[in-house]
This record gives sequence, structure tokens and C-alpha cells, in this order.
Amino acid sequence: MALPDSIEIAEVGPREGFQFEGIGRPGAISVADKLRLITALGTTGVRTIQIASFVHPKIVPQMADAEAVLAGLTPVPGIAYTGIYLNDSGLKRALACPNLTLVPDIVLSASEAFALRNQKRDLEGDAAAARAMAEVYRANGFKVTIGNIMAAFGCNFEGPIALSRVLERAAILQEIAVETGGSLELLNLADTMGWADPGMITRTVQAVRNQFPHTRISLHLHDTRGLGLANVYAGLIEGVDRFETAIGGLGGCPFAGISGAAGNVATEEVALLCARLGVETGLDLPALMTATAVATEIVGHPLTSRLATAGLPQATVPVPTNQ
Amino acid sequence: MALPDSIEIAEVGPREGFQFEGIGRPGAISVADKLRLITALGTTGVRTIQIASFVHPKIVPQMADAEAVLAGLTPVPGIAYTGIYLNDSGLKRALACPNLTLVPDIVLSASEAFALRNQKRDLEGDAAAARAMAEVYRANGFKVTIGNIMAAFGCNFEGPIALSRVLERAAILQEIAVETGGSLELLNLADTMGWADPGMITRTVQAVRNQFPHTRISLHLHDTRGLGLANVYAGLIEGVDRFETAIGGLGGCPFAGISGAAGNVATEEVALLCARLGVETGLDLPALMTATAVATEIVGHPLTSRLATAGLPQATVPVPTNQ
Repeated sequence: MALPDSIEIAEVGPREGFQFEGIGRPGAISVADKLRLITALGTTGVRTIQIASFVHPKIVPQMADAEAVLAGLTPVPGIAYTGIYLNDSGLKRALACPNLTLVPDIVLSASEAFALRNQKRDLEGDAAAARAMAEVYRANGFKVTIGNIMAAFGCNFEGPIALSRVLERAAILQEIAVETGGSLELLNLADTMGWADPGMITRTVQAVRNQFPHTRISLHLHDTRGLGLANVYAGLIEGVDRFETAIGGLGGCPFAGISGAAGNVATEEVALLCARLGVETGLDLPALMTATAVATEIVGHPLTSRLATAGLPQATVPVPTNQ
Repeated sequence: MALPDSIEIAEVGPREGFQFEGIGRPGAISVADKLRLITALGTTGVRTIQIASFVHPKIVPQMADAEAVLAGLTPVPGIAYTGIYLNDSGLKRALACPNLTLVPDIVLSASEAFALRNQKRDLEGDAAAARAMAEVYRANGFKVTIGNIMAAFGCNFEGPIALSRVLERAAILQEIAVETGGSLELLNLADTMGWADPGMITRTVQAVRNQFPHTRISLHLHDTRGLGLANVYAGLIEGVDRFETAIGGLGGCPFAGISGAAGNVATEEVALLCARLGVETGLDLPALMTATAVATEIVGHPLTSRLATAGLPQATVPVPTNQ
């Protein structure tokens, strides 16, 4: 397939990235610092920024300030500020917030071991929970249109994930969406623990597209083992036109059993790749570099983005006179 | 093009990687530590390891121990231990060493600014120096068969490099090789400062192959801006079957004007990519991970390889009982 003319890059750093900063590191990120990064991201051209998680504060204390972040936000017109919520009380909290764009999505895990470890649910229980959340949406007047599959390419606890499992989970998401009066308009495949490779991306995208021809495919990739950008490139070659990324590569995944690992693919690296390939993202690279610098300052340690360290490719040093 | 069935991965960590450890860091690497890494690499299945540089000790003091490294080496049968030499005295030193496989190669820069900065030569002077080195080879009974082009994809001092420049430099390398009675059997294109992108790799490999159909193409890539593995993947798609890599991603490039930047593409990450794509490398992934651990211990700071931090993708944690 030809590369897409343009793609959407959705930023998840302020939620997924900062969420993991609270684990195993001193001090959570303050509301003021969260707002500072969100403001910096607002100047980059990005049109979706995931900024809050309405899960129980006891479970994810570093996200307990969701309401304060949204209340403090000066929204930029044209940007959707989104969050996640896993039950009725989370959705109710989200609906009470100003400035939030509600995304009616549900989540399944492709790995039973991962679901057991993180939610104490087997695959059936995982589907039951997604169905319960769909019912919450329906009761609040929303149709489900978006599905996410976690650990779609492999799992640190279960090992490789069969493509047939991904297709089964996608079929369940589709079924649930239809039950709410919606349909699976967008399917977000997450390489939660960095197991994907370009061949897997190619085969999975082709198979999903074949089975769900009316569903837009989105990739949520992690650079845990260095193949993140190669996977993005494989996705682009297959025509994938939506990626979820985190500024600076925020979002190392301690709950996945590895500390210190690289996080999400870095927004600025994906933007550079696309700029070079002639794929329009609407993102401004220098503004992204500024946002990365802000993120680095806030977390107080170097981020895993290589571009953040090296700087944009430009001739920065005066050329000596030819003598 | 289809992916190649098998490729050669040539290791450059003990030379290019360790060379830059001596710059801006406390203490150079000892001969014993160099031998320790070379020994670890010897168990990985790699068949070419670049281990020494016969340049003047005043210019690159951290490589002054080339003779000691080679004298201390217990060579593994089937592995070529190679070095670099830029003039007659360097070549003479190399020829006097046991255990060294001589590689009759010459080097040109595609960037005039880079050549001026590092060798105080313009493009013409750069070609004259390569021709002089070729004469040294000829005088010592060697035909030139290998050419390298530095900064083939862009330069921190000159900016983007036109493809026409790369083809011109390749034509000069070919001409010089023929003058020695040889021919350009292998052309190694180096992304010295991390400017390449997958589109550039594709266009460059296609154009070079078109103009030099009998020349094998090799890629020497750096992961400076995060696109290294995507570039390897683009090379594989174009059928490139030789890559130069460094264990752990050693080889950040301080002379290129950036400190702290990522180095060469990491041998273990390229090996993982190939293993996943079904491209045979002859390399053993667990043995590479051991060699990476040795390299990390020797340099005393975390390497930039993400795989080195995260570990191989395998289910390492017992799966809870499905309850």
C-alpha cells in the first residue's frame, strides 16, 4: 500500500506518561506542571491530548487530580482534551468536568495473563467488564464507537499473542458496540509491553482490515525493545492513519514487569519520521521539541526520546570556510 | 523487493563504540576490558568484529593500544577481526599484527563541511587522500575492493546531502578501486550523524544499485534521532544484506557536535528485528544480551539500547492460575 497522505497523532503523554512517573519515583507531578505540559502541547498542532484518568484515586493516586487539571485548563479551540474512565462513577466524574471531550470507548485485553494480573479477570470476565462499561455508556446516552485491545502483540506474562486472539477480541468489541446502538468505528491496537515487530504489524493490520473493512485502525505502540519506530513505519506502509504517542517517549510501563524501560513511541520521533516521508501530521517539529524540553524539566530525568537528546537534524554549526 | 533470506551483521562496538568512550568521560577502556567484550562477542555467532584503529595515538589516544589488543586476543576460528588505518604507517602497523584480517577499504565523505572540520580537506582533498591510501594498498600488494561514504544521508555541519553527491562520491570510489586493479565490490553507506530516514534509505539504495549493479551495498546506521531501526527495516525491504552495528548501541558521536546522543544502531536490536522478520543473521540473541551486559559493565553507564534495558521479549513472570 502507499503511505497515507496525512495521519492523526494523538498525544497520550499527560495521562499515560505522567501516570507512570508516580510509580517508583519521588513525588507525583503537580497540577501546575501537568497544565504547563498541556499548554506547551497546545502549541504543537496536535488535536487530541489525553490528559486525565478518572479511575479510583486509591488505585492510581497520581491521577487523582483529574478534576483539578480540567478545571485549570485554558482549552485551545480545535483540541480535544480526553480522559479514561472504567466504570459508572468514573464516567460521571468525567461528565461533570468542563473542557473534556468524551470518548465512548471500551477496552479488552488480548492477554489473559495480563488481565488476570492487572484486573483479576480472565478473558471472559474481561469481556463482561467491557460489556458492563458499554451499558454504563448506553445508560448515559452514549453509543460505543471505539474499541481498544491491550497487549495485542505479545505479553510479558503470557508470551506471544496469536493473531486469532486479536481477531476474536475485536469481534467482541464490535458486538458490544452494536449492542449500544453504535459500531466499531475505530479499533486501537496497543502494543502495551513492546512485543510487536514490523512483520506482526503488517499481518495484524491486514487481517483486521480484512475482517473489519469499515473500522479505522489505530496503533498505540511502545518502544520498549527498540522496534517502535520500525513498527510505526510498517503501520504507515499498511496505510494506518492514526497513532497514539507520548511526548519525549514518556510512559515507561512499570506494571508490565520491567523498570526503566522505554515508554510510548515519542511524538516528536514519529512526527520527524512522517515529515521525512511526506506524510502530513499537522504537527510543528520545533514546537514539539519545546514541549519535550518542558516534559524533561517536569519529570526531572532524561526522557527516552533520542531526538530529544540529539535535537532536530539541522546544520547547527557554522561551516568552516573552504580553504 | 522481498526481504533477504540472510544478512551479515558486522560488529563495530569494540572500535567505534569504545573510541568515543574515551571522549568526555573519565578514563579510557583498558586492554583487558576490550578483550573481555571481544571474547563475549565471540560467542554470539558474529563473523566480523572491528576491534582496532591504527591511527596516530596523538589523534585518537583511546585506540593507541591496537597492537596490545590484537596480541592479547585468542581468536575464534571463523571470525574476522578487523581494524581501520588511514595511511601507510597505519597499514604497516596493522600488517605487523597477528590475528588481524586486513580489509582493503577507502573512505570518502559526502559532506564537504564534515571533511573540512575533521580532516581539514575539501571534497577534492578528501578524494586525493583516498587515492593516496589506495596507492598505499597497491604498494603493499592489495587491491581496493571496499568503499565507505561518511555522512551519506546528511550532516550536522552541512545539512542535507543530495543523492547526486552520494552517487558522485561512489563513482570516485569505484574509479580508485579500478586504479588499484580491484573494483568496488562493497559500498558501505554511513549515516554518521543520524540524518537518514526510511524514504532516503529506499531512494539511495535504489539509485546506487541502479548505477552500480555489481556492488554489494552495506549500511552503517546511527540511531541518533530514533529512526535507526526504521532505517534498517527500510534497508531490509530493499534487500540490503549487510549492516554495521554496535553492541548495546555503543558509539555516540561527540565529534559530530552532539554530546549524549545515541550511537550506532544496537546489534541486539537489529538481530531481534531480523529474527522476528525471519531474516537469518547467524546471531544468538541471549548471547548478544550477555555481551551487552558486559559492555554496560565496562563503560560504567547505561547504554542507549532499549532492548538492553527491557530484556528479550519473553514471558518472564509466572502466569497466575486462571481462577
